[in-house]
Amino acid sequence: MNIKTITGNNDFIEFLRGKKATFLLALSNTNTANIEGITQAGIPGLIYLTPTLDSEFVCTSEVRSLENIAETPKGVPTPALITRAVHQTTPFSNIELLDLGLMKKPQIDYFKIHHFDIHPSDSIDTDANIDALELFEKGLEFGKNYKTSDDYIILAESVPSGTTTANAVALALGYKCEGMFSSSFKNNPKNIKDETIKKALEQIDDGMDIFTKLSLISDNMLIFNAGFILGLSSTNTKLVLAGGTQMAAVLLVVNSIVEHMQGVFDAKNISLCTTRWVYEDKNSDIKSLIELCNFDINTYYTDFNFSETSHPALKMYDDGEAKEGVGAGGAIMYSILNGSNKLTLTKEIEKFLN
Amino acid sequence: MNIKTITGNNDFIEFLRGKKATFLLALSNTNTANIEGITQAGIPGLIYLTPTLDSEFVCTSEVRSLENIAETPKGVPTPALITRAVHQTTPFSNIELLDLGLMKKPQIDYFKIHHFDIHPSDSIDTDANIDALELFEKGLEFGKNYKTSDDYIILAESVPSGTTTANAVALALGYKCEGMFSSSFKNNPKNIKDETIKKALEQIDDGMDIFTKLSLISDNMLIFNAGFILGLSSTNTKLVLAGGTQMAAVLLVVNSIVEHMQGVFDAKNISLCTTRWVYEDKNSDIKSLIELCNFDINTYYTDFNFSETSHPALKMYDDGEAKEGVGAGGAIMYSILNGSNKLTLTKEIEKFLN
Repeated sequence: MNIKTITGNNDFIEFLRGKKATFLLALSNTNTANIEGITQAGIPGLIYLTPTLDSEFVCTSEVRSLENIAETPKGVPTPALITRAVHQTTPFSNIELLDLGLMKKPQIDYFKIHHFDIHPSDSIDTDANIDALELFEKGLEFGKNYKTSDDYIILAESVPSGTTTANAVALALGYKCEGMFSSSFKNNPKNIKDETIKKALEQIDDGMDIFTKLSLISDNMLIFNAGFILGLSSTNTKLVLAGGTQMAAVLLVVNSIVEHMQGVFDAKNISLCTTRWVYEDKNSDIKSLIELCNFDINTYYTDFNFSETSHPALKMYDDGEAKEGVGAGGAIMYSILNGSNKLTLTKEIEKFLN
Repeated sequence: MNIKTITGNNDFIEFLRGKKATFLLALSNTNTANIEGITQAGIPGLIYLTPTLDSEFVCTSEVRSLENIAETPKGVPTPALITRAVHQTTPFSNIELLDLGLMKKPQIDYFKIHHFDIHPSDSIDTDANIDALELFEKGLEFGKNYKTSDDYIILAESVPSGTTTANAVALALGYKCEGMFSSSFKNNPKNIKDETIKKALEQIDDGMDIFTKLSLISDNMLIFNAGFILGLSSTNTKLVLAGGTQMAAVLLVVNSIVEHMQGVFDAKNISLCTTRWVYEDKNSDIKSLIELCNFDINTYYTDFNFSETSHPALKMYDDGEAKEGVGAGGAIMYSILNGSNKLTLTKEIEKFLN
């Protein structure tokens, strides 16, 4: 398995080879996920538990807040399995959780869980009801002051229905991004998502400033992480955004805020890494999304797939039923940069399903 | 695959097992390499590019300054393939480059490239035209001040025609080293090398001090690294010289400088590790070279060979067509010390040739 370049060149990622990372997992709930059929990231009726369960599983290999690990109605297992398998074969030095508004706190001892007094956001089709400026500033402060003894940071997320909010935000900020956003569905539920995004955008008018727009139709992760990136950029710490179109949307929020503040952003210390399932997705276009930014950035995908397994639940990834989440792409990258291989990783993932 | 002791015992190297290293790659051009037929370390007419291409390949797995990776006219691939394969399977924590006089700078971002305002040296058959004392002091200062967050340093080199200059230097410094020097050729081009060395030595007389001699007939790597070793020895940092007879010549330069300064050198924190191809070479004798030093030192070779492959280009190493360079021996050592095995390493090297 290899890391392939989407934009830029491979020097950034090669520089990180052999180095140790802290894995930060940003967790958030938005009530947008309660719109029926909008996401398959979890168990119907218990979608809100997905980030909590994902974080428990990545940290401990157990789910504590439910009997079983979350899988979709079709039986696609969460990408948290991939991230956990990486952690078992080429362990991160450290995992920390960011509670960006969770309905249910993860039941984990010892691991650092950063709390910021952030509440789950409301549904974007009415009003997400976020204080975006305050939330951005919380991210900014956290980034400015974040210290790690590791060589770099991998920032991942688990936010059910996050592609919908990401898509809405990118449109609200004026980006021409039709057809560029991914969904965890194979048959992208265009109608429900489109309708939700349409309703969300009806609240927006061109006269609004960026933070007003974000307050109405974002999720917490997009805003906080934009602040985190800008805060961290003052510290010279290298950062890999582990995610697909949602993380690309975070970059667009950064881009718009920098523009709003008439600043210039140097992205030399940040990067993005996603999965091949996102990169090859016919229903989205992460490369074009990234290229909407005014700054240059090195971005990558990993070419790992499930060709080495015959397990039907995993094969669904190769069929496009699930593509990314819980930092799967960045985790596979970490695995590669620390000398693992496809068969080892595949076998480790399979163990969770037996 | 195993690490075998040449001199001393295996405690030094066993102490490093499981520890993380920074890989320093010293790069230099000498116009000696332009003497026709003197080296096969690269593409005829483009030999000067070899250290640049080697460093690009080790860092990024790409060559940027030429279309293809350097191979000899006979098609022997550069040992940089071995070093890179190690980095992909058991990654070094960090790679840094030392520009000790390059015709062409490596085209690499992010990686630290140390510049010392050193120019490529001239050919030793006329006058290498080096300010040896100044160069030595640059190495000394760099060694004194070099900081690493890793457990130890592996110091490698890529200097085309470096065995010729190393041989000339050892003779000029008065060492009885007939037949002890290796070449990257199977059929050691004795006549061209001997003639060049003879011409070089004609410039030397016994009344000259060591730095005058080195200025006339050395290459930059030999002098700078001698300084680096002596500077670093004041810091208690452990160092493995990754190379064959050229690195042994660096030790002889250290030995002569210490003698010249009427000092005593304790080599307990340094070591040398080379390949079995050098150790078993009938046309050279690294053990005897090392034993010319007045200090005791632990030195090793790795017993890796290409018995696990049927690839003809790699088989040429086992036939003696290429033996060492770009830290191959020290890299294989690192691979062993970090739990890899012969088959894994062989398969990774083969990938570059498909």
